[in-house]
Amino acid sequence: MDAVEFHKKLRGKMEIRSRVKLDSKEALSLAYTPGVARVCSEIARKPELVYEYTNKWNNVAIVNDGTRILGLGDIGPEAGLPVMEGKAILFKEFGGVDAFPISLGTKRKEEIIAITKAIEPSFGGINLEDIETPKIFEIYEELRKAMNIPVFHDDRHGTGVVVLAGLINALKVAKKNKDAEIVLVGAGAAIMGIVELLLAYGISNITVLDSRGVLDGKRKDIESYKKFFVENSKPRSGGGLAECLKGADVVVAASAPGIIKKDMVAGMDRNAIVFALSNPNSEVEYNEAKKAGALVVATGRSDFPNQVNNVLAFPGIFRGALDVRAKEINLEMMVAAAEAIAASVKNPGVECIVPPAFDREVMKNVALAVARKAVETGVAQEEFSAEKINRRIPE
Amino acid sequence: MDAVEFHKKLRGKMEIRSRVKLDSKEALSLAYTPGVARVCSEIARKPELVYEYTNKWNNVAIVNDGTRILGLGDIGPEAGLPVMEGKAILFKEFGGVDAFPISLGTKRKEEIIAITKAIEPSFGGINLEDIETPKIFEIYEELRKAMNIPVFHDDRHGTGVVVLAGLINALKVAKKNKDAEIVLVGAGAAIMGIVELLLAYGISNITVLDSRGVLDGKRKDIESYKKFFVENSKPRSGGGLAECLKGADVVVAASAPGIIKKDMVAGMDRNAIVFALSNPNSEVEYNEAKKAGALVVATGRSDFPNQVNNVLAFPGIFRGALDVRAKEINLEMMVAAAEAIAASVKNPGVECIVPPAFDREVMKNVALAVARKAVETGVAQEEFSAEKINRRIPE
Repeated sequence: MDAVEFHKKLRGKMEIRSRVKLDSKEALSLAYTPGVARVCSEIARKPELVYEYTNKWNNVAIVNDGTRILGLGDIGPEAGLPVMEGKAILFKEFGGVDAFPISLGTKRKEEIIAITKAIEPSFGGINLEDIETPKIFEIYEELRKAMNIPVFHDDRHGTGVVVLAGLINALKVAKKNKDAEIVLVGAGAAIMGIVELLLAYGISNITVLDSRGVLDGKRKDIESYKKFFVENSKPRSGGGLAECLKGADVVVAASAPGIIKKDMVAGMDRNAIVFALSNPNSEVEYNEAKKAGALVVATGRSDFPNQVNNVLAFPGIFRGALDVRAKEINLEMMVAAAEAIAASVKNPGVECIVPPAFDREVMKNVALAVARKAVETGVAQEEFSAEKINRRIPE
Repeated sequence: MDAVEFHKKLRGKMEIRSRVKLDSKEALSLAYTPGVARVCSEIARKPELVYEYTNKWNNVAIVNDGTRILGLGDIGPEAGLPVMEGKAILFKEFGGVDAFPISLGTKRKEEIIAITKAIEPSFGGINLEDIETPKIFEIYEELRKAMNIPVFHDDRHGTGVVVLAGLINALKVAKKNKDAEIVLVGAGAAIMGIVELLLAYGISNITVLDSRGVLDGKRKDIESYKKFFVENSKPRSGGGLAECLKGADVVVAASAPGIIKKDMVAGMDRNAIVFALSNPNSEVEYNEAKKAGALVVATGRSDFPNQVNNVLAFPGIFRGALDVRAKEINLEMMVAAAEAIAASVKNPGVECIVPPAFDREVMKNVALAVARKAVETGVAQEEFSAEKINRRIPE
């Protein structure tokens, strides 16, 4: 079926449902007035009870301004809604999380921050989505500090988690280790998240390039958010992409279609690993990279092996964080999520470094690992219960 | 069952559900990437398509700041959530409307206005709820003018609609007509809405009192929003409540428990009609008013006949407005809603001036009347279809 027809027929991919049967005066007076008044008063007296008596604990706002929708760019918040609704149903189907799109008709950084802060009472978590760089970095930092509920930027850390998961298995398959030489191409939110996750996992032989070359101390034209890369990488060369890739173990690109050439892949170390994440057209095509000698190739596409798909991460990450009422989703929790995804692949192979996107066991493993790590890192505000987490992820 | 236990057991009265079965790669690629990209591009090209391809057309934000929750006052947005969730499930159960609580952690008028404007892309309508006076009046006016989707203030116009509906039947039962002398007690949002509806219906012998007496041209201490009452009423007396009620046909109070005394009711015209809306304790108790000689008594309570319950109005009003994509919910549409509610009572009697809150036929009648009036008043942007409206209200 055609996707436009599919959407037209549905006229909305999600809906609100009542969890109460409102079939009698008694039901109405328990769920609404007058019974509800005492419930309100109890919360007013003891604010944490909002997590026990309402949906807040399980609600996630998908906050976006439509400025960076998929590869389509700034097409506006209305045009982004099909993506946000898609995300919302993935949250529910794979994580049992109630997510709602908050698509904003403003692009102003300060307004996006103020609005997201202001809607906190209704929500247990915030998922920032498809907001353009560089403003998204400030928005995330500011909200992470200011809000009492976890804030997650999926384009950055969701991608980081799944790439790290795939890389853990790819290194195993390629008989490489944490000393591997990694070259990252692109300097946006995705590469930022990937670098953070690599560092947190203990991989530090990192070279990052933007469209103008290697990000190192010699560059004078660096935007302030890219200083992170300069400070946290050890460039293997000062040259261009081709030179950087010579003898490298891994390349991870979230950049532009076709920028990695066959002979660049051919010049990498033996058992080279290639992550070409641009979608729908990769930085180097799957088959081309394989022919050029890469051992493991991963892309963002569903029609080749090893699809890097954020749906492996975000439903389980939020499920775990919400279930222990984590104050934040920290890097340790994200690394735990990546390890759980990687461990879900029983026998990693060149065509099997990440599990399939539909496996509910993966979601459970991720949620359990994230919740446990939240407890370990002292950010959990509720007790851990594996039984509850397992039950809340739909079969 | 106890309402607190009930809420604790549920931990949230609503939930998000997917309307798509995500059980295959194909389903995922239609509902999400890569298929969704073309749907987004179509909307970017032709913005009205957002109403055809997404949930926007049926989504309503229940915007509130927790400053006037039931009779509990300013208990905060978290403590108000049980009410907002209750409202959301009533919207769904009786109107087939997908409503979501947007509870705001700010009380600032300007911020509430800016935030509500900013979330417009996700929603097809705005229901303002439990925001304190007088700021709510400015918020409503500003949003009504600025937004491209209908904005409704249920505490004001929802109450106005149901009181007018009850009054239409009560006047019939009491053999009175539009010339009836009506005394209104209180000068908040509810009385404002009631007066607007009375005037729009053609009832103009109106006297309004606030806690300091009759609102007329002689009063020097009148807050600016109360000037509406001075300009739109014909006070029958300059005295206090007792004097105003002497010989009056109808009293409608949304004020403080117990302020209407037995002998005040006794001094009204024969076949007097009393609306005592304060909840849970009325301005005059149902039985007391009857004993004092009132023919018809209505209250906000569910344990006496003639309950004035907004649930008779808001689900059908929004269903009708959303179904023809009305630009606004104007007074004509509200009067049509009131007439539809009144007409839903086949044989009005002293204990039966409004229909029961659970009758789906009432909701359908309201929705159909509102949608038709939207077309008639030129604010509808989609075609009217009785079949669709009937189908969208759950049985």
